[in-house]
Amino acid sequence: MFGKTYPKQAKTRMFFVYYIAVYFTCINKSNMNLNNYLKEKRKLVDSFLKKYISAKKRRKDCPKHLAEAMGYALTAGGKRVRPILAIASYEAAGGTAESILPVASSIELIHTYSLIHDDLPAMDNDDLRRNKPTTHRAFGEAEAILAGDALLTDAFNIISEADAKPTLLLKVINELSYGSGPEGMVGGQSMDILLEGKKADKKRLLYIHTHKTGALIRASIRIGAIMANASPAKLEALTDYGEKIGLAFQVTDDILDVTGTMEEMGKPTGSDNSKGKNTYPSIFGLDESRKIAKKLVNDSLKALNGFGKKAGPLEEIAKYILARRN
Amino acid sequence: MFGKTYPKQAKTRMFFVYYIAVYFTCINKSNMNLNNYLKEKRKLVDSFLKKYISAKKRRKDCPKHLAEAMGYALTAGGKRVRPILAIASYEAAGGTAESILPVASSIELIHTYSLIHDDLPAMDNDDLRRNKPTTHRAFGEAEAILAGDALLTDAFNIISEADAKPTLLLKVINELSYGSGPEGMVGGQSMDILLEGKKADKKRLLYIHTHKTGALIRASIRIGAIMANASPAKLEALTDYGEKIGLAFQVTDDILDVTGTMEEMGKPTGSDNSKGKNTYPSIFGLDESRKIAKKLVNDSLKALNGFGKKAGPLEEIAKYILARRN
Repeated sequence: MFGKTYPKQAKTRMFFVYYIAVYFTCINKSNMNLNNYLKEKRKLVDSFLKKYISAKKRRKDCPKHLAEAMGYALTAGGKRVRPILAIASYEAAGGTAESILPVASSIELIHTYSLIHDDLPAMDNDDLRRNKPTTHRAFGEAEAILAGDALLTDAFNIISEADAKPTLLLKVINELSYGSGPEGMVGGQSMDILLEGKKADKKRLLYIHTHKTGALIRASIRIGAIMANASPAKLEALTDYGEKIGLAFQVTDDILDVTGTMEEMGKPTGSDNSKGKNTYPSIFGLDESRKIAKKLVNDSLKALNGFGKKAGPLEEIAKYILARRN
Repeated sequence: MFGKTYPKQAKTRMFFVYYIAVYFTCINKSNMNLNNYLKEKRKLVDSFLKKYISAKKRRKDCPKHLAEAMGYALTAGGKRVRPILAIASYEAAGGTAESILPVASSIELIHTYSLIHDDLPAMDNDDLRRNKPTTHRAFGEAEAILAGDALLTDAFNIISEADAKPTLLLKVINELSYGSGPEGMVGGQSMDILLEGKKADKKRLLYIHTHKTGALIRASIRIGAIMANASPAKLEALTDYGEKIGLAFQVTDDILDVTGTMEEMGKPTGSDNSKGKNTYPSIFGLDESRKIAKKLVNDSLKALNGFGKKAGPLEEIAKYILARRN
């Protein structure tokens, strides 16, 4: 019996080994592609932002120390997730020209301003961000507030000078201001601060997460689609994708604050808990939070049905959210 | 001799009295017109802002306490100088439609956000503004920072939804973001904070004043002209006017901080001096500062030559800057 089964077992084993090898090659290949994609797009965005800050430092009308503070925060090693999402959404919706780059990069100015202000002593009171002193620790509180204000204002200045149809640019400004304003990101941060140290119910926790982080990610995806002049159906599908990954991104952020190391995260972990922040793990537990994140990512992938290969990067980014370590 | 001269003296006296009476009637009439004009336009702007805040409070996506803080600062009794300047410039350049109102009012959101942030403990650390506790004293620092961010962001949201040609609205956004950003208002505030307690030279004092206050007033005037589709020559003349009154406004503000009463100003006076702020009186002295303000206003009036009656309100506003008590 063993004699007879050995060859079968060997076959099964060989098939299994082959299957695993192919699986990991695919995974690896896919990751390699995503890594290349992220690297390439990040380089584009970084290059735009570097030029922007260099020009700012050269301009007589912008005080040197203000430009320094803005540049310090903007080039602190951000992953450029939001601009890359805008570019990937733009490509998924059929966009081909280069005009998306200034518009996509302007979203990073908004994201960076929000980090500067969120880190302030009156808000989250953080000393470290991406393994470096936060802007107010490096430049003082007043300069940090102003650097944030300047980046926020300049985001709209950049869009107003982009080379694209005025009607599209106005829609982009509408989308970005809505997603980052009192009905979006600022609203989420406001509610988060208000409920710090108090137990939020699930509805309010959902409000905080979909607004504090989700709204700007949703806006990034929509901005890409708008710039590509996407059909209403495509815009809706991409919005659905954006909402799902926006929430998934914040849920995994909450999870990483519990499970990640300081080295991986570039800031002390466990800080949500010590600050009495309302998070998915604190309300749903760690296992349930992981399940929720997984379901959100799966749902986001479903929203991309019908986009074909062009949505490849968006698919990979969604999967990456679950796998990320920082 | 006396007998002969009495009738002459009487005639002279009568003529003098008549002349003075006519002069004051004119002054009074002119002031009345300006007062009516300011009242009427302020009512329009106030009505727009009231609707804006009411809508904000009704929206589910905007946290109630955030909308309260925004409304508190926005409806604290501002004179609406900048929106009125935009409207007056719009009318001077031949604009007639109503589409200027949302755009003009959005400038007040920018102005209000700048006051909220300037008053913060890390900046000017003021407890009173327009005889009321400053926003951070009433709502806490975190909420004040966020209310400022929200108003700044919403200014661009309002413009993006205004009923006018997209090309004009994009120009307006460009103008407003430039005038209130790091090369404008934020730049001026940053330099002001940096040089607090240090003696600035005249060049830096001029930079602070033309940027901290001047840039947004200049932008208001230019925005009105842009919305009226003014010719390049008219835009240039109005820009000249805006630059002159922008600086005159800040110089008289410095003077009033020395000479005004707390009741008139709605905040403690003499605070520039106690904070070691660089002001025109501190560098040029009070008399010279008054002369500078007068010359600026006279020059601003010259820039309006050729605009005719339509520029009447702009003329009166320029004169009012010298006469104002708060």
